[in-house]
This record gives sequence, C-alpha cells and structure tokens, in this order.
Amino acid sequence: MALHEMMNYSQLFLEIFNELQQIEDRGRVADYIPELAHINPDHFGVHLTTIDGRQYAFGDSEVRFSIQSIAKVFTFVLAYSRVKSNIWERMDMEPAGTPFNSLIQLEYDRGIPRNPFINAGSMVVCDILADQLASPRENVLAFIRSLSRNSTVDYNPIVAHSEKRSGFRNYALVNLMKSFGNIRNEIDKVMDLYFSICSLEMSCRELSESFLFLANNGIVPHSGESILSPSRTKRTNALMQTCGFYDEAGQFTFKVGLPGKSGVGGGIVAVHPGKYAIAVWSPRLNKKGNSYKGMLFLEEFTTRTKLSIF
Amino acid sequence: MALHEMMNYSQLFLEIFNELQQIEDRGRVADYIPELAHINPDHFGVHLTTIDGRQYAFGDSEVRFSIQSIAKVFTFVLAYSRVKSNIWERMDMEPAGTPFNSLIQLEYDRGIPRNPFINAGSMVVCDILADQLASPRENVLAFIRSLSRNSTVDYNPIVAHSEKRSGFRNYALVNLMKSFGNIRNEIDKVMDLYFSICSLEMSCRELSESFLFLANNGIVPHSGESILSPSRTKRTNALMQTCGFYDEAGQFTFKVGLPGKSGVGGGIVAVHPGKYAIAVWSPRLNKKGNSYKGMLFLEEFTTRTKLSIF
Amino acid sequence: MALHEMMNYSQLFLEIFNELQQIEDRGRVADYIPELAHINPDHFGVHLTTIDGRQYAFGDSEVRFSIQSIAKVFTFVLAYSRVKSNIWERMDMEPAGTPFNSLIQLEYDRGIPRNPFINAGSMVVCDILADQLASPRENVLAFIRSLSRNSTVDYNPIVAHSEKRSGFRNYALVNLMKSFGNIRNEIDKVMDLYFSICSLEMSCRELSESFLFLANNGIVPHSGESILSPSRTKRTNALMQTCGFYDEAGQFTFKVGLPGKSGVGGGIVAVHPGKYAIAVWSPRLNKKGNSYKGMLFLEEFTTRTKLSIF
Amino acid sequence: MALHEMMNYSQLFLEIFNELQQIEDRGRVADYIPELAHINPDHFGVHLTTIDGRQYAFGDSEVRFSIQSIAKVFTFVLAYSRVKSNIWERMDMEPAGTPFNSLIQLEYDRGIPRNPFINAGSMVVCDILADQLASPRENVLAFIRSLSRNSTVDYNPIVAHSEKRSGFRNYALVNLMKSFGNIRNEIDKVMDLYFSICSLEMSCRELSESFLFLANNGIVPHSGESILSPSRTKRTNALMQTCGFYDEAGQFTFKVGLPGKSGVGGGIVAVHPGKYAIAVWSPRLNKKGNSYKGMLFLEEFTTRTKLSIF
Repeated sequence: MALHEMMNYSQLFLEIFNELQQIEDRGRVADYIPELAHINPDHFGVHLTTIDGRQYAFGDSEVRFSIQSIAKVFTFVLAYSRVKSNIWERMDMEPAGTPFNSLIQLEYDRGIPRNPFINAGSMVVCDILADQLASPRENVLAFIRSLSRNSTVDYNPIVAHSEKRSGFRNYALVNLMKSFGNIRNEIDKVMDLYFSICSLEMSCRELSESFLFLANNGIVPHSGESILSPSRTKRTNALMQTCGFYDEAGQFTFKVGLPGKSGVGGGIVAVHPGKYAIAVWSPRLNKKGNSYKGMLFLEEFTTRTKLSIF
Repeated sequence: MALHEMMNYSQLFLEIFNELQQIEDRGRVADYIPELAHINPDHFGVHLTTIDGRQYAFGDSEVRFSIQSIAKVFTFVLAYSRVKSNIWERMDMEPAGTPFNSLIQLEYDRGIPRNPFINAGSMVVCDILADQLASPRENVLAFIRSLSRNSTVDYNPIVAHSEKRSGFRNYALVNLMKSFGNIRNEIDKVMDLYFSICSLEMSCRELSESFLFLANNGIVPHSGESILSPSRTKRTNALMQTCGFYDEAGQFTFKVGLPGKSGVGGGIVAVHPGKYAIAVWSPRLNKKGNSYKGMLFLEEFTTRTKLSIF
Repeated sequence: MALHEMMNYSQLFLEIFNELQQIEDRGRVADYIPELAHINPDHFGVHLTTIDGRQYAFGDSEVRFSIQSIAKVFTFVLAYSRVKSNIWERMDMEPAGTPFNSLIQLEYDRGIPRNPFINAGSMVVCDILADQLASPRENVLAFIRSLSRNSTVDYNPIVAHSEKRSGFRNYALVNLMKSFGNIRNEIDKVMDLYFSICSLEMSCRELSESFLFLANNGIVPHSGESILSPSRTKRTNALMQTCGFYDEAGQFTFKVGLPGKSGVGGGIVAVHPGKYAIAVWSPRLNKKGNSYKGMLFLEEFTTRTKLSIF
Repeated sequence: MALHEMMNYSQLFLEIFNELQQIEDRGRVADYIPELAHINPDHFGVHLTTIDGRQYAFGDSEVRFSIQSIAKVFTFVLAYSRVKSNIWERMDMEPAGTPFNSLIQLEYDRGIPRNPFINAGSMVVCDILADQLASPRENVLAFIRSLSRNSTVDYNPIVAHSEKRSGFRNYALVNLMKSFGNIRNEIDKVMDLYFSICSLEMSCRELSESFLFLANNGIVPHSGESILSPSRTKRTNALMQTCGFYDEAGQFTFKVGLPGKSGVGGGIVAVHPGKYAIAVWSPRLNKKGNSYKGMLFLEEFTTRTKLSIF
C-alpha cells in the first residue's frame, strides 16, 4: 500500500472535524417525524474499516442512529443475490433526475422506477422480497445482523409507525405503481416491510463493517462468506455511484468520487473498492436531503488522501 | 502491473469482436443528416493506449469518423482549465434524467442545464469559450490537435452545415436558455462553434491518445504537459461517469464500470484512471443513441479483464 | 319561443339516432371493473326536459346506468351552495390540460386540483362534505333523490366496492393531496364517499330532470325550490363548460356548444341555460373517456336545432 | 329586447369605473419591451357595439394601443374561413393547461399546439397563412382594416422589431415545432408575420366593431358581409371561451361568462352572441398576463346586467 494509506486516519478525522467546526452547519435535521426531529443535531461520528481489518474511528462512531435509506442497499443486495427472476424488468438502473420527477417519471415509464435506491424502486424490491422470502422482515434483519456481526441491530417500531402515519407521498408512489401492475402483493404487506427497513438503527462502526464486502469483491473479509459475485459487487457499487444520493448523485461523485448511499437520518456510507468502507453521521441535512457535514467531511477526506476511484 | 494487464489486448479485441459478430446488431445508424446516414455501418475499430505508452489496436482504428458529442469533453476541459469564473453557476453537474426532460428541465431550472455533456450544457460551455477565447473555433481546434498529436485533425464543414440546417431542437434549447439569460453571446456565434465541434473527425487512435491525460492525473504522458490539476481531472472523470451517456449513464456505469463519453457517430471513449484510455467505433446506435456494439464490446472487455473502477 | 323550438324533438332524436346507426361505433365500453364491462354496449337513450315542463324521450331513456363522474356535479353543487368557507382556496377553476398532467399538476400546484370536476378535485369536494354534513353519504343521496324526484335512486355498493378495489390511481391522487395537507379527513372516509357517489345509478330522464335547475337560474321549475343563486348557477355552468369533459372540454365546447358533464358509464348531461337539460346514454367511450355516440348525437342535435350558447 | 338592455350602458360604465377606482390596481404593465413598458398605466377605455348598431363608450375608447394576442383571433378567422385543408390536423382545440406546459406539451404532442390562441398555435396559423396568401402581411392587414372600417389601422414596426429581438422563448417554440415538421415555411418568414400581427394597434371602438360579426352569426352587421358560416362562428366563440385567456380561461368563463380574448397590451374583447361585442383597455396586467382592471370591469358588467351566455 502507498505511504498515504499508512497514515493514522483517526488523526486525519480529527483534523477535518476541527476544520468543519469552523464552518456554520447550514443543514437542518429531518423533522417530518418526531423521532428524527428530536435527535441532538451536534452528533458526529465516523468509522472506517479496511479490507485487511484495520479500523479507524472518531466521535460518536458507536452511537446507533436511524439509517433510513441506507437500508435500501441491504434489501437490494438481498434481492440481487437470491432472486432468480430478472429484477431489471421491474426497475431501471438510471439516475432519477430532477426531484419533481418522481411521480411523472413513474407515470411516463408506466410504473417502472428509475433505480432500486429511490423510494419507488425500493418498494419494488420489497415487493420482490415479500414474494421470495418466507419471513421477509425477519430474513432481512437476520441478513443485516450477520453482515454487521451484531445480533442486537434491530428495527425501531416507533419510527416505522411514524413513517407509516405520515408517509402519504410514499403511498401515492406505491398506489401509482400498483395501478400499472408493478406491485404484486397487497400494498400494506409491501409498505410494512418498506417502513420497517427504513427504521433500522445502526452505528457508524456497524455500517462500515456491513458494507465492507462491497469493497472486497463481494466477500465478507473476516468470514470469507461470499455475498455477491465479483461482477455483481462491481455493479452494485456502480449503482450506488449513479443513484445513491437522490438528486445529488452527480455532486457526490464529482466531489467525493466514491460510490455510496445516504439516509435522511444523517448517515452516509461510502466504499473504496479494494480498500475500505467508511460511514459518517451528522444529522443536519442539506436541501437535497443528504448530511451537510457528512458530504463535506467525505469531500475533504478523499481530497486529502488523494484517494478516489477516478 | 498485475498479470492480466500484461496480456495482449489486441488478441482479446479479436476474440470479443468475433463473438459480437455472432450477435445481430440491432442498432441503427444515425440518419438525421446525410453525412452520418451514408456511413458504412459495418465499420469497427478499437484502440487502447496505456499511460506507460503501450498501444493496442484492432480493425478500423485509424479511420476517422464524426466524433459528435465526444467533443463536448474537449470543450468542457478547455473551459474548466482556463476559465476563471465559476462555470457551475451556469450549469449543474447532475445526470440528465429521462429523455423527455430536456426542455421541461431547462424551464423548471430557469435555463440552467443539468450538466456540461448534454447538448444544452455544451452550448453554455461554447458560450463561455466564445467570451474567453480570442478565436474560439481555432483555439479549440489547436487544443485538440495538440492532445491528439496530429495537426490534420479538423472540423468537417459539410457536417457542421447539415447539423445546423436540421438542428431545430438545438435552436429551441439555445433560445430557451437565452430567454433566461444563460446565453450571453449572439445565438449564431454560439451555435457556429457548437456545430463546428460536433463535426470534428478523429480516429480511435487519436481519441484514445487525446483522452489519455484523464487517465494520468491530468498530465499528457508523452509530453508531461499538465492539462488539468489532479483534482479537476478526477472530477472530469466523475462527470463523464454520471453524465457521459445521455439517458444511459447508469447502464454504462453498471455494465462497463468506467467513465466515458459517447457520440452519435458511433464512437465511445472510456478512461481507466491510472491505466489507460480506450476508444471504440461502431456506427449503429441503440435506442438511447449510443453505439450498440461499442457498448457490448466495452462491457465484455471490462468483464474479461476484471478491470473496472468499482 | 322560436319556431324551431316548437318542433317535435322526439322525431329529431329518431332521425339522428338512425343516422348514427350508419356510423361504426368505434368506442369501447369501460372495462376496468366487471360491472361496467358487462353492460350491453348497444344501449342508447336520450331525454330532454324543458324549463317549461315539456319532455322528449327516445330509446332506453328510463333505464338506469352508472352515472360515474356526472355525480361530481351534484357533490360540487351541494358544497358550493351550503359551505361557508371559500372552497376556491382548496381547488382551482381551470381546465385540466393534458391527461398526463394529473399527478405532475398536483405536485406543481402543491396539492391544489385544477377544478372540482376532475377526480382529484372531486375528492377535495368529498373531503369538504365529509366535514360539513352530518351523514355525508345519506345527505348527498337525499339531495339527488330530491332533485330527480325519485326516492329509489341509489348507490350501487357492488360498483363502489369494485371501484375501490381497483382504484389505485385514485389512491395515488388522494395520498399525494394529503401529503400537501389538502385532504383533512382520514383517506378511507373521503374515498368511501367518493366511490359511493361514482356508483350512483340514474336514467336519462332522472338526469335531465335533476340538472334542470341549472338551466333555470338555480330554481327547480316544478317546485320553485332554489338550489343555487342565479350568479352561482351561471358559474356552475361555466365550470362545466371549461372542465366537464376531461381532456376533451375544448372539443365538446367547440362541437356541441353547451355546458355539460360526462361519465365513463357512457352518460352525458348538457344544459342550455334558459331552455332545457338533456341527458344521453351510449356506453361505448372514445379514447378520451367520453361516450362516442353521445358526443356525436349532441353535436348533431345542437347543429340541427341551431341552438347553442355561442 | 329586455328592459335591462335598454339601459344606458355608458352610465353603467361610469359607475363601474368609479367603483374600480376605489380598488388598488395590483397589476403591472408588461415590460419585456420598451414600447409596452412606457405606456401610461392609467389609461382606461371601454367600447360596446350592439348588433343593431348602438354604441356605448367610456374613457380612452378612441386611443389606439398594442392589441398583441387579440390579433390571434383575426389570423385564426382568416385561416379558418379561407383555408381548404384541415387545420385541426396541425393544432388541437383544447385549453392549454398550466403555464409550465407550453414546451413539454409541444414535446409530448410531437409539435401539435393545444389551440390556435396560444403562441405556438398562432405560429402554426401564421405558417398556414404564409402558404395560402399571396402577401400575408398585407392581406391580414387589409382584412382587419375592413373589419374595423378604418384604413389607418396598422402594424407598429418598432414594436414588431422589439418583440423579435427579445422573443427567445417564441423562437424556442417555433424551432421545437419545426423539429417535429409542424412548421413548413422558413422560420423567419413565419416569425415576421407573427411579430407583425402582435404589433397591431387599435382602439376599443375599432376592436368592438371588428369583433361584432362574431356576435352576429358571422355576418358584419353594417355591410351584411359574411365572414364565417354561423356554425364556424359559434365554434370560434367556443374556442375563445375555452382558450382565450391563457391559464385563466376557466376564471374568465367563471366570472365573466362570455367568450373573449385578451392581450398583454391590456386589452380584452368579449362577445355576447346575438347581442354585442365589447372591448376594454387597462394596461396593468395580473399575474396570468390579463388586464387586471379589465377582468374586474367585465365581471362587474356581466354581473350587473345579469347577462352572460350561461
């Protein structure tokens, strides 16, 4: 490994954190449900795990938070690895485009979502899992517990319930897709799974460990277990690159240069293939719904380490 | 370098080409102007240049063809490297989304194109160059001749004239942007430059050599000349990754896994940072406007070499 | 009254009917629920009632059919006549525009429907009635029974249930509006009322009698009861003129020249202010969802009688 | 005629005018070209002509102003009366819907405008006239001079030139239509005619006289000349009803209840079939681009006279 990779990343984390402290955090905590609104907005944690087992942490890296849309990667990987049918007949693999498109895009494309990482696409993934798995909620949870090596990772039923109660736009999406025949199960069954996985709580440490197989050709380093083939692993990373950040995928690719996925809980996970997985958490969000400081932190980190996939 | 990189790529090119011969080419040559419609659709060429100077060629790799939108990378790099003002105030860096969006997106975003590699964005780049360069057409040409190490690379005025005569949709775009104040020069001045650069003719060899600096931290390997800073080079590659293939950027990223840019002349250039630049040419286009066999060829190539940035 | 108004309309009905028999009916019966799909497509009925009490009938004018969206006029009139609050803060009074707009329009206008006669607008009307009436389903029914002078007019619960089971696009609309705060009641409460009123069954005779107050300055001719003020009556007619035929309001206005409202059961009601109300029923629909022969019949009728509001 | 029609309309005009003086005029003069921006915003004129020859005037009823889009009715009538081909293959007859639609609608409908009274539709009308008339500019002018009984009515070349210089959005529309093949002539030829007719200057008196044939079954009352058949006259009025006020056609129909057409110069003409034509002028525009006080004036006028077509 090159010299800069030998450096003490924890020291670098501290330096970048201190610099970011000088910057006013112009983001806002997600407030559409009370459970997200009442989080302490000054939390900050980061955790990096290399494929050869080194770990670097800073701040609240062990505190669990609501991972929200980051969980869409887990359900996608589960469907992509185990499902025999062609999932690409039911969703596309293209960036979502402008935010006002969600509904008109679904209408124009007759119920086919743009990719598995936007809400509509993840609902179709949940619909597929609801068909293929014996106990979808339990099977998904077991999969994530195994990846994170922690059997206490769990759904937060209060968060799931709140999301469900206020999720009218999500219900608009799923009903529109069902009107086109692209949701096969009862809507409630699909949405129960969807809102459950959004409510998962994990720490930065657990997230970086759980995503490490994506930096390692699909193989979990410590166990040797193969989650995805090397080709499908590359393709999952490619999908995160173009579709992982809502309407800001281009910006993240441009500034950070790594595949990754964000959630409105303020978490971001990024993967450097062949090297590491990193998770950062800072609850305030920019206008596009991605962690304000998390984005800046990762931009600084890949700029200083001169490491990106480009 | 790893073993697989020592292999004779030319031999691999032949193998993949032979396999693709078995597949019916369901693409169609672009026919909106006679100069593109009359090309022999069976042309096929590929050329790969590594940053340490090795070259691998196959087929019509020395035949010049109309590079069309591939030229948008050259004008963007020229603007990005030399222009002091913030070009990101006048265009975004996000994928374009669905194809029907071009006009509504411009209207919704009040004349700000999604990125510099769609038509509207490249027109704004031309508008910027028209302001900043003394002799825009000549300066752009000199820049590309220098990159390609060939002083005979040139515009094709007949193609430029045909494009201009049939380019009503492009005129719709530029007029809409001008109505929002995002085109500063006279429309004819901007469009003359725009249609000229689309008419450039280069061979696969010339293209792969011209793009090689993007695989080499912004430095032209043979001359040592710095075109872009390492950071801006990475960012240009990132832009090609998310925005280089119209409505198929996700697909290309997913299947090929390299940043690149296509043109309706049937050419595709892709860059593997730290390794090589490759250009492929096959005139028949898929429904999204990208070379049908060119896409398949690159997918096979990165799959077999197990080389992609992900 | 002028001479042509003394003519025997029933004779004219027969003549037009015979001519239309020569024309191939290229329409198709609505088939999204079994109850509509299984109707005999060759039914044809027409009934005209003048404000001075004359009645002219032809064909199946006494057969009840599913009036579907025609009922949106009844609920609107009820809300417009009895509700104190400004209903125009919650919906607009403009034609809906192109059909693909329903969802993007609601998104663009932040949950405010274009008018009370499109589905989304009628849902808001139902939401208003759900707030204002003690027993909305019963009150609406009593109102319509009174207008039609027939206490056996009723909802068809099987139709309502079928509509509800297949109404995913309607649920998409109502959820989207609720996400913007423009639906106040529980979605199920609103949609139960909405699907009930769509299931109403009435004959051409009952419809023409029920709409007669709109031709008579808001006063029911036989009873003298005032339903709406003269000004609000004119405005309701104006709304039907611009918004009563989905994406074909312009066509109907152009060809027929009377305010009216259609339903996917194949019914159309039209009003000539100061003269009459006419209802026609022919189940096969054109591509825009309006009765194919019903439109042609009314076009011929107003052309031959040289009577239209223009 | 009924009693209220015997009243002195001029007296009523004064009363309404005085009341409107109490209301703050929240409109704004069109300012996209200097010739419109520099008009005295306090001008106010109204002129009503009945089909039996009575005339009622108030204020600046003899002052000429830029009639702008009102002229679209003249060119449409000319094309509708004289052109043999089916103009409805090249444009629709439906309201335009939401304002952001102009371009996406044209794209969705492959270059077919929604109706002849929006800009795009009027450009197609100009394209048709450019084919059919020997000297389009002169022929159109002669037609309008004849209708207005005033041979000094003329184009304002300075206004036409200004419109052309700033009309980038209009050029976007015409180029988009030409890309779909719905403009047959050279763009400059079409747009010269289009901008000329927008620059016409007429007084309220001249406008009300020129539109009178539309209230009289297509016949010019004083000369007996037939401009349109009774059926086509009704249909032209119907078109004005649904399409005459941009995104406010529903509002105007609802509040005023007469077919009409407005222009950004602050003029509005309305027609009561069988009775009269009225023109009002007040330069300040509401947000939809229609005369703020002109709309209020006509609403009051039809409310007080209890005269509308509904």
